Amino acid sequence: MKKFAVVLAGCGVYDGAEIHEAVVTLLAIDRNKCSYQIFAPDIDQYHVINHLKGEVTSERRNVLEESARIARGNIQALSEFNPDTYDAIIFPGGFGCAKNLSTFAFKGADCEVNPDVENAVLSMVKANKPVGALCIAPAVIARILKNVDVTIGNDENTAANIEKTGSHHIKTNHGEVVKDSKLKVFSTPCYMLDANISQIADGAENIVKAMIKEF
Amino acid sequence: MKKFAVVLAGCGVYDGAEIHEAVVTLLAIDRNKCSYQIFAPDIDQYHVINHLKGEVTSERRNVLEESARIARGNIQALSEFNPDTYDAIIFPGGFGCAKNLSTFAFKGADCEVNPDVENAVLSMVKANKPVGALCIAPAVIARILKNVDVTIGNDENTAANIEKTGSHHIKTNHGEVVKDSKLKVFSTPCYMLDANISQIADGAENIVKAMIKEF
Repeated sequence: MKKFAVVLAGCGVYDGAEIHEAVVTLLAIDRNKCSYQIFAPDIDQYHVINHLKGEVTSERRNVLEESARIARGNIQALSEFNPDTYDAIIFPGGFGCAKNLSTFAFKGADCEVNPDVENAVLSMVKANKPVGALCIAPAVIARILKNVDVTIGNDENTAANIEKTGSHHIKTNHGEVVKDSKLKVFSTPCYMLDANISQIADGAENIVKAMIKEF
Repeated sequence: MKKFAVVLAGCGVYDGAEIHEAVVTLLAIDRNKCSYQIFAPDIDQYHVINHLKGEVTSERRNVLEESARIARGNIQALSEFNPDTYDAIIFPGGFGCAKNLSTFAFKGADCEVNPDVENAVLSMVKANKPVGALCIAPAVIARILKNVDVTIGNDENTAANIEKTGSHHIKTNHGEVVKDSKLKVFSTPCYMLDANISQIADGAENIVKAMIKEF
């Protein structure tokens, strides 16, 4: 059974992993007869947002501990990721990708990327294994690889920042998947478009199926 | 378009709503051409569990604010629930049902139920509209209605406590739905069995489809 590493950025769209995208990614992997192990970096979140009010709170939360909520406790620190053990790696979206896994939300094309995230992506590309990214996560991959075709849907500001990294943005609609054949990088827009949850599940299913074709 | 009220108990299996069950319930509702509004009681969680370590922390979190993470901010306090506006109500599982929505985890058959939860369930039963419950949530419904057929799978201790409320427990396996025809109450075991995420999605799909037949 082929095995995906799934990397989460917390638990909640505004300060962590987008929960619907994370869950339907796990579902798509399982429904397509593959297995998964969930990872997250063991770092503090950039901040905590009260998702009812949309306001920053004074709390501090840890990305690995909050991601463990989506993982039902079955999670590993991303620093322990071994590319030899996995056939693919995939990043669901959420602002946590742009706030915790990287500083893309604040610095755009000039952002820093968490070293564990960078190592994980580079090691899988080096091993010629597929890398997947949903929603805003492709911006992080674009920054790491600097010359890769990705999509985040059609948001012009985000697309411009992706182009500034040296990577190339391709416009897409609901459920469409962009494949960079050279680097085996796959991306799909999900909630970067105004979408319903069925469209998110379709996007996750499509990207996982496209990645599986590379096995 | 028929409309479901979805009631959450926080965000995380050990102290709130079970996240997979919550998301695949929303997905099943949307895929079956119905709409949903998410609710949660505006109360403190009983406690906060670090889902990485499985330990109680010193934090305090609010059920409505944490549920808002799953709802992407689009959520209402359960005290605002109006049964005239909805065609059905459904409760995904997670320990939050037995710790926040009720005290079933601590007091079993003698538990208290949050008044907003009790009012919501009783008003829908009175209106002859379907009520759904996944995982451990049927135990709360059993306590409220005191004479209803439900399932939580096959856990003997939980089943015995359900019987003590005056309700009746029926053993089930993955994805099976128990229907109480008189009260239009539907239940399915989900993660009360040792299940994978596809089985959870099947259970959610089956219970939502069964409830829709009542419209």
